[in-house]
Amino acid sequence: MDGENDLRTEHGGDWAGYQEEYGSLPMDFSASISPLGLPKGVREAAVRALDEADRYPDPLCRALCAKLAEKHGIPAGQIVCGNGAADLIHRLCSRLRPRHALLAAPDFTEYRRALQSAGCGISLFPLQAEDGFRLGTAFADTIGEETDIVFLSNPNNPSGVLTGREVLEPILQRCREKNCLLVVDECFLDFAEREAEVSMIPALDGTPQLAVLKAFTKTYAMAGLRLGYLLCGNAELAAALQREGQPWPVSHIAQEAGLAALTEENYVNLLRRLITTERKRMAQALDEMGFTVIPGEANYLLLQSGNTRLCDRLRRRGILIRDCSCYDGLGPGWYRVAVRTERENSALLGALREVL
Amino acid sequence: MDGENDLRTEHGGDWAGYQEEYGSLPMDFSASISPLGLPKGVREAAVRALDEADRYPDPLCRALCAKLAEKHGIPAGQIVCGNGAADLIHRLCSRLRPRHALLAAPDFTEYRRALQSAGCGISLFPLQAEDGFRLGTAFADTIGEETDIVFLSNPNNPSGVLTGREVLEPILQRCREKNCLLVVDECFLDFAEREAEVSMIPALDGTPQLAVLKAFTKTYAMAGLRLGYLLCGNAELAAALQREGQPWPVSHIAQEAGLAALTEENYVNLLRRLITTERKRMAQALDEMGFTVIPGEANYLLLQSGNTRLCDRLRRRGILIRDCSCYDGLGPGWYRVAVRTERENSALLGALREVL
Repeated sequence: MDGENDLRTEHGGDWAGYQEEYGSLPMDFSASISPLGLPKGVREAAVRALDEADRYPDPLCRALCAKLAEKHGIPAGQIVCGNGAADLIHRLCSRLRPRHALLAAPDFTEYRRALQSAGCGISLFPLQAEDGFRLGTAFADTIGEETDIVFLSNPNNPSGVLTGREVLEPILQRCREKNCLLVVDECFLDFAEREAEVSMIPALDGTPQLAVLKAFTKTYAMAGLRLGYLLCGNAELAAALQREGQPWPVSHIAQEAGLAALTEENYVNLLRRLITTERKRMAQALDEMGFTVIPGEANYLLLQSGNTRLCDRLRRRGILIRDCSCYDGLGPGWYRVAVRTERENSALLGALREVL
Repeated sequence: MDGENDLRTEHGGDWAGYQEEYGSLPMDFSASISPLGLPKGVREAAVRALDEADRYPDPLCRALCAKLAEKHGIPAGQIVCGNGAADLIHRLCSRLRPRHALLAAPDFTEYRRALQSAGCGISLFPLQAEDGFRLGTAFADTIGEETDIVFLSNPNNPSGVLTGREVLEPILQRCREKNCLLVVDECFLDFAEREAEVSMIPALDGTPQLAVLKAFTKTYAMAGLRLGYLLCGNAELAAALQREGQPWPVSHIAQEAGLAALTEENYVNLLRRLITTERKRMAQALDEMGFTVIPGEANYLLLQSGNTRLCDRLRRRGILIRDCSCYDGLGPGWYRVAVRTERENSALLGALREVL
C-alpha cells in the first residue's frame, strides 16, 4: 500500500490490511467500538430490512429522524442522518466552506482532513500532556472574529478526557458572540457515566451556533453498517446539509438498524457498566506496567510509552492498537487502546507484558 | 414537504413519502430497479456480513476491487467503489472541481446537481424528441477547449436510448484531443441486450480521459444497500477519488453483498430476458393507448402524453411513475415508467387504461 492510501487506514480498524498480510483476523484494539457486538434486536431488524433492500432508501430518513426527535426532544427538522458521523463532518465542511477553523490538538483527525478539503485555514489550540490534556476556558478566548467553525470531541478522541459544561458553556457563549458554529462531537459520550451531565444537547434549543454530532457506530457496534446524525440548533443548517451531496447517503439497512437500536436501553446500560469497570482495571494495570495513562472516560485509553515500536510488536502477535504518533500535539510513543471485554483486555495486557 | 426537500425525492422511488401519506406501500414504477429482487446468494452474503458489522468496513474495498478487476480486466488500482453510483458522481465533481461541463439534455439530473455544487458552469446539448433523443456525432464538435468534463448515460436516463460505439468513439477522440474527462454512465447497461457491443470499458486501457460508471443498485436490486463503482482509465484519478470525502463510504454489508452479486450470472441472464420481453410488450401496449413511446433499451420507457396529470391519478391508485417534467429538454406530459414483472406491468397498463 502506498503512503497516500495510508491516509485511509490511519484511523485504525484496518482488519482487512492485517488479513491481507497474515491471512487471519486480528484482535482489534485500534478501533473503539462496543465489544458486545451488534445487539440482537438490531441484527434482526437489519435482516428484515434486507427484504426491502430493492427499494431506494428514504432520502430524508423520515422514520429515523422522527424517533431521534422524540429521544432528544429536538424537532425532526433539526436532525440530519449520515453515512456514519464522518460523512456529516465532510458534508458540513463542503456545504459551509468555512474560511477559518479552530481545533484542539490532539483531536479527531477527520476534522482537519474535511476542513482542508474545503480549503479552510486551521488554528490549533494545543492541549498539554502535563495538564492531562484538559481543555480549559482559555480555549474560548482563542475564538476570534475570523473563526467560522470549531470542532471539539467530548470525550476527546484520542485522550478520552471529558470536558464539563463549565468549560463548554463559555466556549458556546463566545461562539454566539462571534457568530461561529460550535460542533460538539459526542460520538463516544454514550460510554461515559457522566453523559447526561456534560452533553450539550440541552443547549441546542434557541442556539443556532451549536450542533452536536452523534454516532450509532460505536455504541451499538454498527461500524460496518454506517450511521451517524447531527443535531442542529439551526433548522436551516440541517436542511442545507440534507441537500448536500448525493440523495441517498444512508442505506435502508442502516436506517432500520438505527430504529431498532434506539430501543436497546439495556444494552447501553450493560455496555457502560462493562466499560467503566474494565477501563479502571486496564488503566491501573497499564500504569503498573510503567505507561503514562491519561485518565479518560471513554471506551479507550491514551497511553505514552518510551517504547515507540509497540504497534509493530503487537501486530506480529495478532493484536492491533492505534499508533497516535500522527496526531497534532502527540508524537512517537503515544498509543490509543480500546477497552473491550475482560477476556480480550486481559489478552492485550498479557501481550503487552511480553513485548515490553 | 417543502419545495427544497422535493429535490431529495424528485428521483422517484419515494415509497416513504407515499407510505407517510397513505399508510401503505405503492407499486413503484418511478424507480428503475430489477424486479426480481435481491438475489438469494446476495441476501445470504449480506446476512453473514452482519456478523462482522461491528468492524469498520475496509476503507479501500480491497476484496471487491480485486474481483471487479478480474471481471473487467482492469487493474484494481483503477477502480473506486462508492456508496451508490450517485456518491461517485459527487466525489468526482468535488474532487476535480471542473470549471466547465457539457451535458446532454435530457440526462440524469444528478450530474447537474453535483456539478453545480462544485461551482461548475454547464452547457447543454439538446437531444431532439423528433429524432427519438438519439445522440449524434455533432455532440463531439461541441466539446471545446473550455470543456473539462462530459457526463453521458448509456443507455440514456430517462430515454433508455442506447448510443453505439460509432458515436462514442469520436466523442472520446475529441476528449483525448481537448484533454477533457468523458464519464460514460453504464449503470443501466446491464439491462440492454447489446451491452457487450456498446460498453466503453474496453476503451479504458491507455485512455486517461475516460471513466465508466457502474452500479449494483439497479441490476441486483440493491438500491437500499448502496453500491456503485467507477472504472478509471487514469489510476491517479482513481487514487484521488479514493481519498475524497470520508474514509468509509461503502458499508461492509454492501461490500460483501457486491462480492456475492458478481457470481450471479444466471440472475442477470434471466433478468435481461425478462426485461427484453416485457419492454417490448409494454412499448406496444402503451403505443396502442396513444402514448408516444421512445424506443429505449433499458429497464424503463420514456413516454409522452397529452395528459399532464397522470402521476397524481396513478398515485391515488397506489402506483408511482416518474414525472419527467423537471428534466432539461422535456416538460409536462413526459413520464418514465419502469419495466417490471409481467404481473406488475399488466397492473400498470390496466390502471393507465382506467385513468386515461
